[in-house]
Formats: sequence, structure tokens, C-alpha cells
Amino acid sequence: MAYKAKKVVIITEKLIVDGVVKIIEAAGATGYTVHSTGGKGSRGIRSEDRPRVVDAFANVQIDVIATEAVARQIAQEVAAQYFANYSGITYVEDVEILRPGKFERPE
Amino acid sequence: MAYKAKKVVIITEKLIVDGVVKIIEAAGATGYTVHSTGGKGSRGIRSEDRPRVVDAFANVQIDVIATEAVARQIAQEVAAQYFANYSGITYVEDVEILRPGKFERPE
Amino acid sequence: MAYKAKKVVIITEKLIVDGVVKIIEAAGATGYTVHSTGGKGSRGIRSEDRPRVVDAFANVQIDVIATEAVARQIAQEVAAQYFANYSGITYVEDVEILRPGKFERPE
Repeated sequence: MAYKAKKVVIITEKLIVDGVVKIIEAAGATGYTVHSTGGKGSRGIRSEDRPRVVDAFANVQIDVIATEAVARQIAQEVAAQYFANYSGITYVEDVEILRPGKFERPE
Repeated sequence: MAYKAKKVVIITEKLIVDGVVKIIEAAGATGYTVHSTGGKGSRGIRSEDRPRVVDAFANVQIDVIATEAVARQIAQEVAAQYFANYSGITYVEDVEILRPGKFERPE
Repeated sequence: MAYKAKKVVIITEKLIVDGVVKIIEAAGATGYTVHSTGGKGSRGIRSEDRPRVVDAFANVQIDVIATEAVARQIAQEVAAQYFANYSGITYVEDVEILRPGKFERPE
């Protein structure tokens, strides 16, 4: 019952997590995982008036298991709505779903 | 000294982390990483009597670097023991171990 | 605008996170993500005088999106400086950057 899928990873500022989740849900993804993280983007390098967030855990990483089409839709909409004004990156990885549980069972 | 391996990722409810860890250790994995996460599975979509856990961090993501055989054994046993009653998903990714440290040095 | 890159994942002890970050920045990576995690390495198996860290979140996972050359440089330097004395592992995964935001935009 294994099948191939994509994992979309969105790393951005915690301030916009609710908006990113709305985009994920609107795209039809059945589940996602939210990690509270620290880190540094180029804003952290450049800006004197924003603290380094390595310790502050002011960022989130949101992982979504999806089809490639849904992955690309989520990436495009998150970038269009937010990446002009917020630090962020979206990338995808290939995954093989070995055992879907309730997270992945379509209703 | 690089070599190929699999990363098994199990995302499920925090309630069962100890049981999942027992399965991982019994399968012979030499190390694992536990992330406290929020997120949403289809239970979160359906059920009115369970809170959304995006903020609650009621989920865990457990990553295990293993051979493909061990990865599949862990996935099968976690699903068999828990996924009828708990939200969860198990997937695998290809990884290349560049520098094994003590986490990966077999005893 | 998608392009291929590597994700370098370093899992080690929280004690050395600042030193690992210095290595990452010196290698020229433009951003990284730090996760506070629990887990177990072979020290956890062997040593009686070190607690299990599944609950203690005494470990970190640091993810860096980089070129393969930078990934290998980071892995080599982290191992050379720290993995004789600290638990750790470094592995890489293939990723496709769909939408680079400020995290990835070189200045």
C-alpha cells in the first residue's frame, strides 16, 4: 500500500502561520505538521532592528504531504501572499508513504 | 564514508510516543529524534470533540535513520499496533549519511 | 524558478549549537533552521551517567539548504570539530526549491 507523494516544507515567520494554514487547507491537503523553530534568514543577517531568532523560536516549519500539483499550488500561493513581506522558503522532497493513518485517509 | 540510508518519519499523537519508541528500539534502530509538533489530521477535520492541535503541540514526529528493511518493519508495527485508534502517518525518505557520529555508530 | 539543492541535517547536542552555527555561517549558507528535539543516540544506550533525552529536548536538529559542496564542507567541519566528543549525525537529502523567499535570496 506504499505510494509516492511529495512533502512540501514551508519555513517562515510565526506571525503568518494562520494564513499559511488557510492556504494549505484551501488547496485540499488532508493534514499538515507545524514545527516551532528558530533559525536565520537573510533578514536576520541584514537587519539591525530585528533580533536573531535562533533562540526565540519565532519561526515555523510547516510540512504538508500532498500530490505534486497541490504542493506547487501551496508554494505559489504562500509566496504570492507573503514572501514579499516575510522571510520564507518553500521546498519539496520526495517521500514514500508506507502506512497512511488517519492523517492521510481522505474522508 | 558516505552511505545511503532511509529516514523513517512517524507523525502521530504524543500519547503513544513511548510505545512507538519501544517498537523502534525492538527493530534495532540505533537512534531516533523526537519532535514535539502541532498539526492536523483528518480527525481534526471531522471531530468536534477534539481540539485543533496546531497550537497545542499534542503530536510528535519521530525520525529514525535505518535500513529499508528496518524502516518497513517499524512502519508496519506502528500501524498494526496504533493506527486503527490513533491519528498517524509513516513515510520514508532517501538520505545520504555524510558523517555518522555516535548516534549511528553500531555498538 | 524551481531549482535543485541539498538539505543538510545535523542532529547533535544542544551544548554545541553555537559552534555548529558558526561553521554553517562560515561555509556561506544564507539561512538555517534550528529544531529543539529529544531523541537517543548510542551514548543514550550505553551510558548510565547520562539521562535519556527523549523528554529533555537536550538535542538540536539544524537544517541548512545549500549546494552539495557547501553541504559536504559543513558536514566535514562539524564532524572534525565535535563528533569525537559529542553525539551527532549529519545527513543530506535532495530538495527542490519551489519558491525562494528572503531566507534564500542572496544579498
